[in-house]
Amino acid sequence: MREIARPDPAVCRALGTQGVATVHEAQGRTGLLASYMRPIYAGKSIAGPAVTVSSPPGDNWMIHVAVELCRPGDILVVAPTSPCEDGYFGDLLATSLQAHGVLALVIDAGVRDVATLKQMDFPVWSKAIYAQGTIKASLGSVNVPVICAAQLINAGDVVVADDDGVCVVRGSEAAKVAQAGAKRVAAEEDKRKRLASGELGMDIYKFREKLAALGLEYK
Amino acid sequence: MREIARPDPAVCRALGTQGVATVHEAQGRTGLLASYMRPIYAGKSIAGPAVTVSSPPGDNWMIHVAVELCRPGDILVVAPTSPCEDGYFGDLLATSLQAHGVLALVIDAGVRDVATLKQMDFPVWSKAIYAQGTIKASLGSVNVPVICAAQLINAGDVVVADDDGVCVVRGSEAAKVAQAGAKRVAAEEDKRKRLASGELGMDIYKFREKLAALGLEYK
Amino acid sequence: MREIARPDPAVCRALGTQGVATVHEAQGRTGLLASYMRPIYAGKSIAGPAVTVSSPPGDNWMIHVAVELCRPGDILVVAPTSPCEDGYFGDLLATSLQAHGVLALVIDAGVRDVATLKQMDFPVWSKAIYAQGTIKASLGSVNVPVICAAQLINAGDVVVADDDGVCVVRGSEAAKVAQAGAKRVAAEEDKRKRLASGELGMDIYKFREKLAALGLEYK
Amino acid sequence: MREIARPDPAVCRALGTQGVATVHEAQGRTGLLASYMRPIYAGKSIAGPAVTVSSPPGDNWMIHVAVELCRPGDILVVAPTSPCEDGYFGDLLATSLQAHGVLALVIDAGVRDVATLKQMDFPVWSKAIYAQGTIKASLGSVNVPVICAAQLINAGDVVVADDDGVCVVRGSEAAKVAQAGAKRVAAEEDKRKRLASGELGMDIYKFREKLAALGLEYK
Amino acid sequence: MREIARPDPAVCRALGTQGVATVHEAQGRTGLLASYMRPIYAGKSIAGPAVTVSSPPGDNWMIHVAVELCRPGDILVVAPTSPCEDGYFGDLLATSLQAHGVLALVIDAGVRDVATLKQMDFPVWSKAIYAQGTIKASLGSVNVPVICAAQLINAGDVVVADDDGVCVVRGSEAAKVAQAGAKRVAAEEDKRKRLASGELGMDIYKFREKLAALGLEYK
Amino acid sequence: MREIARPDPAVCRALGTQGVATVHEAQGRTGLLASYMRPIYAGKSIAGPAVTVSSPPGDNWMIHVAVELCRPGDILVVAPTSPCEDGYFGDLLATSLQAHGVLALVIDAGVRDVATLKQMDFPVWSKAIYAQGTIKASLGSVNVPVICAAQLINAGDVVVADDDGVCVVRGSEAAKVAQAGAKRVAAEEDKRKRLASGELGMDIYKFREKLAALGLEYK
Repeated sequence: MREIARPDPAVCRALGTQGVATVHEAQGRTGLLASYMRPIYAGKSIAGPAVTVSSPPGDNWMIHVAVELCRPGDILVVAPTSPCEDGYFGDLLATSLQAHGVLALVIDAGVRDVATLKQMDFPVWSKAIYAQGTIKASLGSVNVPVICAAQLINAGDVVVADDDGVCVVRGSEAAKVAQAGAKRVAAEEDKRKRLASGELGMDIYKFREKLAALGLEYK
Repeated sequence: MREIARPDPAVCRALGTQGVATVHEAQGRTGLLASYMRPIYAGKSIAGPAVTVSSPPGDNWMIHVAVELCRPGDILVVAPTSPCEDGYFGDLLATSLQAHGVLALVIDAGVRDVATLKQMDFPVWSKAIYAQGTIKASLGSVNVPVICAAQLINAGDVVVADDDGVCVVRGSEAAKVAQAGAKRVAAEEDKRKRLASGELGMDIYKFREKLAALGLEYK
Repeated sequence: MREIARPDPAVCRALGTQGVATVHEAQGRTGLLASYMRPIYAGKSIAGPAVTVSSPPGDNWMIHVAVELCRPGDILVVAPTSPCEDGYFGDLLATSLQAHGVLALVIDAGVRDVATLKQMDFPVWSKAIYAQGTIKASLGSVNVPVICAAQLINAGDVVVADDDGVCVVRGSEAAKVAQAGAKRVAAEEDKRKRLASGELGMDIYKFREKLAALGLEYK
Repeated sequence: MREIARPDPAVCRALGTQGVATVHEAQGRTGLLASYMRPIYAGKSIAGPAVTVSSPPGDNWMIHVAVELCRPGDILVVAPTSPCEDGYFGDLLATSLQAHGVLALVIDAGVRDVATLKQMDFPVWSKAIYAQGTIKASLGSVNVPVICAAQLINAGDVVVADDDGVCVVRGSEAAKVAQAGAKRVAAEEDKRKRLASGELGMDIYKFREKLAALGLEYK
Repeated sequence: MREIARPDPAVCRALGTQGVATVHEAQGRTGLLASYMRPIYAGKSIAGPAVTVSSPPGDNWMIHVAVELCRPGDILVVAPTSPCEDGYFGDLLATSLQAHGVLALVIDAGVRDVATLKQMDFPVWSKAIYAQGTIKASLGSVNVPVICAAQLINAGDVVVADDDGVCVVRGSEAAKVAQAGAKRVAAEEDKRKRLASGELGMDIYKFREKLAALGLEYK
Repeated sequence: MREIARPDPAVCRALGTQGVATVHEAQGRTGLLASYMRPIYAGKSIAGPAVTVSSPPGDNWMIHVAVELCRPGDILVVAPTSPCEDGYFGDLLATSLQAHGVLALVIDAGVRDVATLKQMDFPVWSKAIYAQGTIKASLGSVNVPVICAAQLINAGDVVVADDDGVCVVRGSEAAKVAQAGAKRVAAEEDKRKRLASGELGMDIYKFREKLAALGLEYK
């Protein structure tokens, strides 16, 4: 698939600023990839449309095909067709993606050259860090729907990633979710101030009566 | 349970300075939480009395109840009633705990907003980093004995946590353990110097004869 | 075993500079230890001859025996005789190894005192960080072949370790592998420049025809 | 969702007879649920349309809602909204499902009363056997698309399950896959006879030349 | 500890007949050991007072000490002091326990000789099946409180085990729990009949109004 | 490698009768494959020389090559070059192996068609049961040393497998180990009788004095 619909870049930037936890909540507590998807280094918070790759275990050929189909601001998403921790991706592929403006890699498998990737500031969220080399022997698919770390990701869906992990937002819902996320951020600001001043969540959220009704007792 | 017995703060400070490995040894190689309990960022070494929370899977309501019962210097300990990695805790709850002087969270489940928690310098030891939202629907218990990551923790027990993980000390034994730990630290100082000068543990600890008696041979 | 053959230190230095991924590829995609072997802190890239220890679960006595047999530049490799995450190793043993010029520890088990080890700049690659104390009761073996994290390691084999994990090179093949690695590094330099300029791997590696022959279609 | 499209029962029966491995191959090596999905007892091979349930962790309320929407021959598929091993399902729910002609349960969580389920001959494929009780507090969804053990399952998709695990076939492709599966079964019959007579796969499949061309050598 | 309080054998028999799921529910959804505790063969449902053993990793000496302290009807519970899958227990120890009337072993570690144990009809619930031999070098403790597979078990607590796993009941609560379990069994009988006749749980439990009030909609 | 040395069939039969636990002990508590290697059905106890296969992840081509090199009584051992659970092996390959007198498969990966394999009485010990299809694209090696489930296995080594798992014996040591195993079996017979009569291991093995010397106390 050469052509995919990409959401408004401003929407992606907004989602990237809000971060994974906020976006996850803003869309009704959905879209989180499995907790084993961890960043190879801390401190990044990004979002962008997914270019998806479905690849056989231990075969990274289709990533090369995908590079050509990426646009600046995209995030490459790679899912093997059966569970695999091999090191599909290293600094050469990252150099190529970075040259084409790709923001990051999200891969339900392994990655290598992580020290160099950190120096290059090319972030990766992966299942494993593992140098195991891969082959180039079989075809896979680019820009098809994939199951990546327990979530369905379509080409053009927005992938949000930070130190909390990775969340996917349907492309068609991205603008609406970004609005809901912005509201949530604003609403939290006031709560944060009240909590910082020592006020209790029990009082702010008026939990006392509900808990008493359920039978909470103090001894 | 509103009122719990808390050990002497000076004892807690001593245990926090000694650190997990020393305290674990000083109390007879007991009290270590499972190795999957990892800090969300490195470099902290703390200790304080536990305020414990037993909570249903995916329900963080009781943490709000617990905040009110915390005192400065406490460490909040959360254990779900069945295995769960959901993100019970984020930056708003941390803001509230920090406002009440709570030192840290130890949770046998997930945590989120970890980048913000690091900025706030609010340390957490957890089983997972996972943004999955939780609900507020069911009662749990505060300040009851809990099994957290393979250890029994009572309210008022001292929790020690550093980059090595987490260790629990019974409240009634905290002073004794801190004394034993201090002796151990002092005893190690001399050994460290001798080892640093190149002297062998084989000689310092007089292992040669014992090993020879057991049949150790060199080829 | 007191005496072991050690490869040329210059070869070890070369392998340490090339790093795990390059060395793994240079020797035909072999030698990688399991992906669970992680550094306790980031940023080291080293290589050196292995001094191997086979040790009962929860018993670190033989590490003391091994210290005496280490030479400057060596890497200590510890494998328990059954799976174990206990903390066989801490700052005192590291002090002793560092005094004898040992570069690092690779252990298919647990390690403790990791904050101090980082301050000392004594790197460790381990299966776990776990403070659990060990005993000194049973004999094991030093400088015998061990299976460590899914690889066979002989005394005198070269262990290469960096942020990607750990790789082993047979001692007799170290010079040849270092040469192959150097070629690989040189060859990658040109590719990196072309990829950085935006040229596609599809063109550099001439993948288009091969992929078309296999049936790749664009939609 | 009350109404779902269900494939032809004869197609389901055919797929159930062919079994998981054949169906998986017949549809192009896709559709397998994760290998941790195991039958609670051996010897069943079934297929039927999925009635899907998305349920909060530790809350089995929606299964009761789903029972009413099941038809004879259906297979109930349950996926929690975050990873959970709690025992959502036991003999009472099985009694109810069996009374309505439901063939089996596929659940990406835990099940209990497994001895009774075996006596009742009500098969279950699950992630865990775990008696942990669940609550009835929150809404979920019935007959929405779910991710269950690493596969997307829509209501009305055909679920095939046997001792090898579980495979999903899109409802719209079920007839075509059953045909392809039947061809595959027929083709294997001849190969099985030749292999049973001692003929080598190397000869039957004419591998010798291809392998020699790739460089296979005998020593 | 030589002498421990044991609950009434009739209470234990009742709990063994009710089984793990019922007993777990009857005592308020508590007491379940981790789901990795599995029977080495199916079909047993038992209960008895625990004789507990705390043992170093890879050292089964204290099991021999414990045999002498067992009485007919007891269940031996073994927990290592750090995680371990070694084969602490085989057919000789089972022969000895069986000769003294012990019903079963529950061990948070490994077991071996499982084919013979099945022939002898000596049931075991364990974390692993693993033949790794253990040593007899260090002391442990018998009849102390242990953490076994995520639950606290005291000597004299009742251990209930069947194909669903293992549950612990405090000795002092065993009679009360058995009564509550009996009520639960009786109450389920009526529900089972109604469900078997095709009546819906939605109607029996009157869920329709509650679900509608929460907003459940049918499409 | 076409030709490999095979131990005396009588020795293999003896080891198969002794079983994994006895053989493991008889050779000094070595040789056990990881505990995740489980039989697909219970009740077999076998031993035979290994024909080894090293195979890329998700590629079973080399198994076809290996069939031709197998002799009656052999056991096929397959190890992927990186961790993989794909279903390398099913009933057609089993039919072929059975036709050539091969006893069993030991595979550090997945297997499928397990219901049929049980009907055929062709035993398999594997890491997983998983139907995921594999390809035939890359070369591997036959009869080279492999690391299989944490053990080194050479072609011609004896593989022993039963319900306890799998153990490897060096070909050159097989006769000696079988003798030691026979002695062990004989010695256990007497102990079993004494234990069955109620005599305590504490007395038979004279543990009381040793334990008292170490400080064992009864309360």
